[in-house]
Amino acid sequence: MNLIGNMNFTDGGVCAAKGFKASGVYCGIKKSASESSSPKNDIGMVVSDVICNAAAVYTLNKVKGAPITVTKENLAKTGGKARAVIANSKNANTCNADGKEKAFRMCELTANELGISPEEVIVASTGVIGQILPIEPIERAVPKLVEKLSYDGNEQAVTAIMTTDTVKKEVAVTFEVGGKTAVIGGMAKGSGMIKPNMATTLNFITTDCAISTKMLQKALSEVVKVTYNCLSVDGDTSTNDMVCVMANGLCKNEEINAEGKDFDAFKNALYTVMMNMTRMLAKDGEGATKLLECECVGAPDLDTAITVAKSVIGSNLLKCAMFGADANWGRVLCAVGYADAQFDIEKVDVSMSSAKGSIDVCKDGAGIEFSEETAKEILLEDEIVITVKLNAGTASAKAWGCDLTYNYVKINGDYRS
Amino acid sequence: MNLIGNMNFTDGGVCAAKGFKASGVYCGIKKSASESSSPKNDIGMVVSDVICNAAAVYTLNKVKGAPITVTKENLAKTGGKARAVIANSKNANTCNADGKEKAFRMCELTANELGISPEEVIVASTGVIGQILPIEPIERAVPKLVEKLSYDGNEQAVTAIMTTDTVKKEVAVTFEVGGKTAVIGGMAKGSGMIKPNMATTLNFITTDCAISTKMLQKALSEVVKVTYNCLSVDGDTSTNDMVCVMANGLCKNEEINAEGKDFDAFKNALYTVMMNMTRMLAKDGEGATKLLECECVGAPDLDTAITVAKSVIGSNLLKCAMFGADANWGRVLCAVGYADAQFDIEKVDVSMSSAKGSIDVCKDGAGIEFSEETAKEILLEDEIVITVKLNAGTASAKAWGCDLTYNYVKINGDYRS
Repeated sequence: MNLIGNMNFTDGGVCAAKGFKASGVYCGIKKSASESSSPKNDIGMVVSDVICNAAAVYTLNKVKGAPITVTKENLAKTGGKARAVIANSKNANTCNADGKEKAFRMCELTANELGISPEEVIVASTGVIGQILPIEPIERAVPKLVEKLSYDGNEQAVTAIMTTDTVKKEVAVTFEVGGKTAVIGGMAKGSGMIKPNMATTLNFITTDCAISTKMLQKALSEVVKVTYNCLSVDGDTSTNDMVCVMANGLCKNEEINAEGKDFDAFKNALYTVMMNMTRMLAKDGEGATKLLECECVGAPDLDTAITVAKSVIGSNLLKCAMFGADANWGRVLCAVGYADAQFDIEKVDVSMSSAKGSIDVCKDGAGIEFSEETAKEILLEDEIVITVKLNAGTASAKAWGCDLTYNYVKINGDYRS
Repeated sequence: MNLIGNMNFTDGGVCAAKGFKASGVYCGIKKSASESSSPKNDIGMVVSDVICNAAAVYTLNKVKGAPITVTKENLAKTGGKARAVIANSKNANTCNADGKEKAFRMCELTANELGISPEEVIVASTGVIGQILPIEPIERAVPKLVEKLSYDGNEQAVTAIMTTDTVKKEVAVTFEVGGKTAVIGGMAKGSGMIKPNMATTLNFITTDCAISTKMLQKALSEVVKVTYNCLSVDGDTSTNDMVCVMANGLCKNEEINAEGKDFDAFKNALYTVMMNMTRMLAKDGEGATKLLECECVGAPDLDTAITVAKSVIGSNLLKCAMFGADANWGRVLCAVGYADAQFDIEKVDVSMSSAKGSIDVCKDGAGIEFSEETAKEILLEDEIVITVKLNAGTASAKAWGCDLTYNYVKINGDYRS
C-alpha cells in the first residue's frame, strides 16, 4: 500500500470513520447447492449515526442498472444528503422490466427499518445482468441487517458485495484537517468487467470530515479521474459502476466549503484511499497473477499522460507478455503508438521495474540492448511498473491493470453457471 | 465463404488476375534450430508483367514500420504506380535505427534484379518489433525469388508472409466489367495484434481490371472501412498494417475513371475479396476456436452501426462467453451500452445464430425467456452471428472477431522466444 503525504493507515474500512456502522448477511439471492453449507454474505448495509453530505459518480454505460437510476434520483431529491447504503451481490438488477421498482423497494425496506426516509438511502446491486431480482430474500434480510449493525461490521459488509473478488478491498486513513484528526475509509468490489468511465465498480467511502456536498462532489470527481478511471482489467465498462462518498461531519472540523488547505488535505486523503483501492482492484483482476502499473511521465499535459498510460495498461498483448514475464517492449511502444494523443514517438523511452530493480528497454522510440536475464528476473515479480517517458513536458499520470491469464478465460467462459 | 452479387470464386490468390507472378523462399531471417529441417518460407515477391496503378492504406499507429514509410514515399514519387511487392515475415523492421535504410535496400535489390526502378517496389515486413533486420539473407534471397517467379507462385508467396497464422489466406473472384471478365485476388496475413485502423495486417491485392489510381484509392478506402476496419482480434493496432492493391489493366476493359456502373462492379468485387479475407483473418485469430460476426441493423446511420458492431466484437467478456458457448447476452448489451454512439438502449433487441438456428435473447433492452439448451446448441458451432437491432433506422454494418481462449494467452505469453 502506498501512503501519500502526512497521514496514516488505520483499520476498519467503511467503519473507520466516527459514527458509521455496517453489517452483512447471507439471504439467498441466488440459490446454489454449493453455498448452502457455508454461504457467503450477499447483502450488506452501511449506516451513519447522523445525516451525511453525499456525492457519487456513476457508469457512463448507456445500460445503467436500476439501482443507479434510483440512487441518482434519491440524491437529487435530498440535494446530496444520505444516511444509509444497501447493496447486494449475486444479481445486478439490470435490464429487468421491474428493476426500478425493486431497487426502490430496497430503499423503502431499509428506510422503514431504520426510521428514515427512502430518499436517504443509496442502493446498489452487482452480479449477473438480466435476471429478475428476487425481493423476498431481501425483505427477510433487512431487519437482520439493521439488527446486526455495528461499529466494527465493515468486514461483514465488504464480503457481502464481493462477486469474483478473491480478496476483500478496504482502505482507511487518518489525516489532519482544520486542527482535527479526520478519517476516510472505504470498501470496494470488482474483479472483471472493469474499465471504469467516470466511475468504477461498486465503491462506498465514508468520512467523518465535515465537507459540503458541493466540495465533496468536486473532490470525488477530480480524484476518480486519476484513480478508478485509470484502471482497466479487461476494457469492459460495467453497467452498475458507482462510487459514493458519505461525509457525516462527526470529527467536528469546520465544514470545508471552498478550495484551500483543508480541501487539499481532504482531497489528498481521498486520493490515498481511492488510489490504494484501485491498486487492490487491479491486483485482484479476474485471473490476475500480477499488478501492472504504467506511469507516463514527461507528458505535455495530464490528459495525454492519462491516455498513454491507459492505452498501455489496456493492451491484451502486453498483458499476456507480462503473464509470461517477457520484456516485449515492442508491445508497449505499439500501445503508446495507438494512444489517441499527440506527441513525438521518436522521443519515447521505456523502462520496466519491480522490487528486483529497473531496466531500460527502449530509448528514442527504438530498442536498446539489455540483459534478457535481468529483465526476466524483474518481470517475475508480482508488481510491475512500466515507465513511459514522452520527453515532451512535465505532466504525469498512472494507470493500473493486471496480466491476462488462462484463468481470466476460464472464469469468464462460464460465469453464469 | 460469402459471395455477393454477380461473380464467382476462382483459384490462384494473388496470381489469379492476368499478368501477375509470385514466388516465396526461406532465407533464414530468423535462425532457429526447429526450422532447419523443413523451414517455412520467410520472404515473398509479387510482380506484374506491366506497370500497375496502385493504391494503399496504412496503419494509423504513430509507431510505423520503416517499410510503411518507404512504401508511402515510393507511391508518392511514382504518383501511384508500382510493379512489384517484396515482403518478409519473422521481423517487422520497426523501431530500428537503420530500418528505413534496410527497407529501401529491399526495394533496390528487387528493382536491380527485375530491371525496374526502386520506387516501383512496395515493401512490407511483419514479425517481431525492435530487432535489427539482417540484410544478408535477403540479398541472397532476391535473385532466387526472381528466378522462381511464376504465374502459379501464389502459394509460395502467401506462406512467406504468415507469422502465427495457422491457415493461408487467399481469395479471388471473377466479375464482369465493361463487357470483359476481370479478376481480383489477394493474400493476407494476420492473426494477433489485430484491430486495424484505416488499414490492416499485411494484405496484397492484385487485379487485371483497368482503373485509375484515384478511383482505385477511392474504392480501397471505402471498402476497408467496412471490412478490415471492422475486424478485431485483440484490440491491438499493429505498427505494420498495410493493404495495397495493384491494378495492371490486362483484362482490357475501358479504364474506370469515375463513379458509375463499372466502378460499382469493381468495388463490389473488391468488397467480396476483402470481406472474405476479413472473415478468414478473424477465424484464424490467435487461439480462436470460433468466428464471431456481429451485425448491427436498424441503425440511424452507417457510423453508428459500425461503432456498435465493433464494440460488441471487441468485448473480452463476450469473447470468453462465446468460447464457453454461454448465451450471456448481458455482456452483448453491456458492450452495446458503452459504444460511443447515440441511440435508445431501451429499444435494442439481440439475437444469436449459427448453422444450428437462431434464438432471440433480449428485447427492448431487457432479457426475455429462452431455452438455454437451444442457445447452447447454437453457440457450440464454430461460426456465430450476433445480431443487434437498434430499431432506430435502416443502416447496418458487420464486424468480425473471434473468441478469447486459453491458447491466445499461451501464444502471447511467450511470443518472442
